[in-house]
Amino acid sequence: MRPEDRKDPTAAFPDGPPPAPGEHRTDPPSRRARIHQILEQPSRTDRLSWAVELGLIALVLANVIGVALETEPALHAEYRWEFFLFDALSVGIFTVEYALRLWVSPEGNPRKPPWRARLRYARTPMALVDLVAILPFYLALVFPLNLQALRVLRLFRVYKLARYSPALAVLMSVIREEAASLAAAFSILAILLVFAATGAYFVERAAQPENFGSIPEAMWWAIVTLTTVGYGDVTPVTAAGRIFGAFVTVLGVGVAALPAGILASGLADHLRRRRDHLRIQFRLALEDGKMDLTEGRAIERLRGELGISHDIARAIYDEVLLKRRRDGEVVCPRCGHRIRRAEPAE
Amino acid sequence: MRPEDRKDPTAAFPDGPPPAPGEHRTDPPSRRARIHQILEQPSRTDRLSWAVELGLIALVLANVIGVALETEPALHAEYRWEFFLFDALSVGIFTVEYALRLWVSPEGNPRKPPWRARLRYARTPMALVDLVAILPFYLALVFPLNLQALRVLRLFRVYKLARYSPALAVLMSVIREEAASLAAAFSILAILLVFAATGAYFVERAAQPENFGSIPEAMWWAIVTLTTVGYGDVTPVTAAGRIFGAFVTVLGVGVAALPAGILASGLADHLRRRRDHLRIQFRLALEDGKMDLTEGRAIERLRGELGISHDIARAIYDEVLLKRRRDGEVVCPRCGHRIRRAEPAE
Amino acid sequence: MRPEDRKDPTAAFPDGPPPAPGEHRTDPPSRRARIHQILEQPSRTDRLSWAVELGLIALVLANVIGVALETEPALHAEYRWEFFLFDALSVGIFTVEYALRLWVSPEGNPRKPPWRARLRYARTPMALVDLVAILPFYLALVFPLNLQALRVLRLFRVYKLARYSPALAVLMSVIREEAASLAAAFSILAILLVFAATGAYFVERAAQPENFGSIPEAMWWAIVTLTTVGYGDVTPVTAAGRIFGAFVTVLGVGVAALPAGILASGLADHLRRRRDHLRIQFRLALEDGKMDLTEGRAIERLRGELGISHDIARAIYDEVLLKRRRDGEVVCPRCGHRIRRAEPAE
Amino acid sequence: MRPEDRKDPTAAFPDGPPPAPGEHRTDPPSRRARIHQILEQPSRTDRLSWAVELGLIALVLANVIGVALETEPALHAEYRWEFFLFDALSVGIFTVEYALRLWVSPEGNPRKPPWRARLRYARTPMALVDLVAILPFYLALVFPLNLQALRVLRLFRVYKLARYSPALAVLMSVIREEAASLAAAFSILAILLVFAATGAYFVERAAQPENFGSIPEAMWWAIVTLTTVGYGDVTPVTAAGRIFGAFVTVLGVGVAALPAGILASGLADHLRRRRDHLRIQFRLALEDGKMDLTEGRAIERLRGELGISHDIARAIYDEVLLKRRRDGEVVCPRCGHRIRRAEPAE
Repeated sequence: MRPEDRKDPTAAFPDGPPPAPGEHRTDPPSRRARIHQILEQPSRTDRLSWAVELGLIALVLANVIGVALETEPALHAEYRWEFFLFDALSVGIFTVEYALRLWVSPEGNPRKPPWRARLRYARTPMALVDLVAILPFYLALVFPLNLQALRVLRLFRVYKLARYSPALAVLMSVIREEAASLAAAFSILAILLVFAATGAYFVERAAQPENFGSIPEAMWWAIVTLTTVGYGDVTPVTAAGRIFGAFVTVLGVGVAALPAGILASGLADHLRRRRDHLRIQFRLALEDGKMDLTEGRAIERLRGELGISHDIARAIYDEVLLKRRRDGEVVCPRCGHRIRRAEPAE
Repeated sequence: MRPEDRKDPTAAFPDGPPPAPGEHRTDPPSRRARIHQILEQPSRTDRLSWAVELGLIALVLANVIGVALETEPALHAEYRWEFFLFDALSVGIFTVEYALRLWVSPEGNPRKPPWRARLRYARTPMALVDLVAILPFYLALVFPLNLQALRVLRLFRVYKLARYSPALAVLMSVIREEAASLAAAFSILAILLVFAATGAYFVERAAQPENFGSIPEAMWWAIVTLTTVGYGDVTPVTAAGRIFGAFVTVLGVGVAALPAGILASGLADHLRRRRDHLRIQFRLALEDGKMDLTEGRAIERLRGELGISHDIARAIYDEVLLKRRRDGEVVCPRCGHRIRRAEPAE
Repeated sequence: MRPEDRKDPTAAFPDGPPPAPGEHRTDPPSRRARIHQILEQPSRTDRLSWAVELGLIALVLANVIGVALETEPALHAEYRWEFFLFDALSVGIFTVEYALRLWVSPEGNPRKPPWRARLRYARTPMALVDLVAILPFYLALVFPLNLQALRVLRLFRVYKLARYSPALAVLMSVIREEAASLAAAFSILAILLVFAATGAYFVERAAQPENFGSIPEAMWWAIVTLTTVGYGDVTPVTAAGRIFGAFVTVLGVGVAALPAGILASGLADHLRRRRDHLRIQFRLALEDGKMDLTEGRAIERLRGELGISHDIARAIYDEVLLKRRRDGEVVCPRCGHRIRRAEPAE
Repeated sequence: MRPEDRKDPTAAFPDGPPPAPGEHRTDPPSRRARIHQILEQPSRTDRLSWAVELGLIALVLANVIGVALETEPALHAEYRWEFFLFDALSVGIFTVEYALRLWVSPEGNPRKPPWRARLRYARTPMALVDLVAILPFYLALVFPLNLQALRVLRLFRVYKLARYSPALAVLMSVIREEAASLAAAFSILAILLVFAATGAYFVERAAQPENFGSIPEAMWWAIVTLTTVGYGDVTPVTAAGRIFGAFVTVLGVGVAALPAGILASGLADHLRRRRDHLRIQFRLALEDGKMDLTEGRAIERLRGELGISHDIARAIYDEVLLKRRRDGEVVCPRCGHRIRRAEPAE
């Protein structure tokens, strides 16, 4: 192990970003496999897949903006025809996309018979979102439906974007991890809202029967106040109401912000764990003094899965390498403490 | 120790969720013990207890909604009789629940004489909440009381929910742990409020005597502003007032959000410590290479007490196991550093 | 070391809260030392000192409430005399307190000549606050001053409370530690405010010359919006203004909350470090298997200095003890890994 | 190693703040090098450089205030001439500053030919900001431009301040590190905004066609509400609208605060990593029992680069030293566990 330390341990990996998995396939993939690659495994090194991904994202955004603008009566009256054409075109593209994804789905699940893989794919949340994005259009052609409502349903095409954001997936898993804390925060908020609405109903009812005439009505004030939105459409006016309001606001103002705080620290914790995971892999790979091609590729794959940027991965790598070099021979992979094995008594 | 490493160390625990403690009791429990199990130790594997718990939660929520709706004059006038019937029924159920809990309470405290265990139970916060939930109804039957106020007292039945949320208990213990920081945050907020109200009183008094005519009146503006509620019912109008207001707002806007931040990081810290605790237990249990039934059950009990979900417990277990396997023989349970014992001296 | 492990290692410390330092003094303190103890080293076990501390806190709070109420014209007119009497009485007590603190200050600084210790004490921030709390009253007796302004100066007596809150001191040291981050957050906020006000001035100037007629005027809108106070007294009304406002609000809304987040995580970090410090002390004290009286007292003193509650200190102690016991002989004090020294080679 | 432990290991570094790098240069620097030092390496020990830095900061601030005040029509009319003079003077100073920085830039890049170093410098963001700060003035002298717009362009001189705040650079790198999380937070916010605006458009359209007549219009309400600004210019008035609004507000109120939370914990994490980095350096430097002059200077340079204050660096140093001393001979540099090498078998 020691002679290898003399070699440059950075030979395999750090000369530029490591090759993407796709480049190493020597045999040309089948057409279905290629389309699967383009649609389901977009990577920056694969130009076509990159362009398709960006195009679909742009189309979804254009759809959202289009639908929103169409609700503007003046625009709707003037550009009715253009809006319809754009919608029909979009639905056409999304239909082709949906069909292709369904067709290639066995590629990601090669052990099952194709039709079962497709059925399985069709039931994933993202496939359902894709279906909901196109179905209303076809239904409206067949049945006489409320066009206004259908038009707005199209707005939910925005959820197609979820596919393209690895960070969204991270946020979702953080929400799952912190579910118990979030539930506790919302429970406390609910109890506080009941308390605030009840109190305000008692002290302000006489002065403002139109705003605090019942607890559900007072609840509007409680929600607007405790979330610190504070429209000002309903405010306490009596001295007692203001004292109660001040008390409830000061106490409760933190509670509505609690979910954000929980999510933020959960997210920070989650990302830290991901980076530690990558750091440990670097350490293990470098334990024998150099990182070979297989190790480099495995780590690059892990980096992609963990959604860690090239910059941060490089920083972690440098740190691990530096620690190894500085410490010479054998070093505790956790704390960087040199273990002097070559010493007298031992 | 080494031969055991060859066996599958996951034999005892990870094949599905480990059995709940209740399933292992071979002798049928007495009726009192069974009711105690149902009411005080609900678990998802015990169907009846699970149904009772959900039913009681639903009834409490229905009560809160009912009381809130009853304060709506129109609804109260039309459904007076139905509201009363629902209330009487609820009180009946809650009375039976209270009596049963009191009766079975010696099961949880078997070393004391029953009447002392019951007295002790009756003084716990949750038992008092249960009592407050039913007492007003009976008092109103005996004494001619203000029915309006009594009706709203019923709203406090919402606190019965606290029993069913382990996360609420976690939040409460975090509040206790962070009490000193929270007190500091509220002290700073109080000092800032006094400062803001005093300043606004000086600069705005002349222009708006009706809103800033005294420090207590200016305090309303200070609270509404520093908590960022910002109703807009009272705002500075003079140039000096706006400059002072801007200064105070920019400086102070973070202080009102401090308690939420303290709670959120306290919560994150608390949950991390709980997971570390479970991780250490897994490591100790796996130190001899396998986890036996006793260890599996002990850890499952701990998992339940710590309120950690099955998913996260499984993830921690996999991580510990993976580290053990990768490292072969002896490994530092903290940093995963392989200790090569087969070297020189041995 | 091993036989001692058989003894109960909890003998010295954990049987109830350890004795307060004061109880061990066998020789009665001089009168000046006793007053120093009462005023400057309040502890819950010393009844008199505890009562004096609570009394002074109550008097300060009563003063703040009194001054605030006195600005209410109706109350001032009716209870003029009572307000003056209360103020005179308070100033009297505060004067005695100030004089006594000055007199006993050499006790805390026994190596210096008394008058230098007193001079030094008189220049500490808390002594200056004490002086400011009483001086205006005496000045007003001598010089014909603006009584209105003087009355409000008394409000600053609230800062006398700072002496009694160790958590406030913690918060202050966190603010010092995080000064660089806080400055960065406020710099970004300032740059964002300049950007928002300039943009709003351009897009809204024509429509609302009275609110957005110049950048300083637009700054009021920018501050009210970016701090999320949102009074609603000044809002963009043009489409361009609303689009710009929406953009700035969404981007900037986090920036105003940044200082609170920085303070909260700084505080969490600070408290964690304090607890780690105590944990290490427990470990060192228990390294020889038992905690003797000297060690117990030293740790109790440290616990007080660090402002850690008895409950949390006890939890840390139990954790350390449990780890030691479980691991038997020698154990890594950090990660709890048993170091099996009694094995083959040795 | 052991005899050296007897010497005072603090000899090299901790006697006061270590000398700044500049003081050790014995040969007088050339004029260009000196100006480079003054402009690009300001340090508190170099009086002139310190004064120049403070002067430039003050001038930038005065410019920002001046431009903002100039938009006030009354002031502009009265002090037109003074404003112009001040602007011309400022531009003059900034031009000299820009020219000098360009001239001395080869000092920081001595291996390149001077003109390439200057070209490289001219393309750095800070140099471009410096250019933008002066260019409009000269352009306006040559071409007949919209003076009003030009005047406001000067406001962007505020960005010159970025040079002087190391903390701003830290915040920027935290934003880069947390880019993925921030993007996820903003994506969720966007999806939530679309959902809120669509829902409000449906339930409030009939009652308030002027505010909720189309989704883009409803978006204004959604943004004002979910960011908790809550102007109150547009609020739901129907029961359905208020119930939907309450639901969306309670759920979404945390999402707008998420970016701040992410930044705050990212910042805390970043600073913690910087301090750990310094701590490791102290440990390595002290491994042989004393810190020599070279080590002291290297650490002082690192401390400056990391932007850690002298106080905190001293606290870290003391902690490391204390741990070393307490543990005597050999000690694990991570957990402070004494490794008793002199024992039996060895």
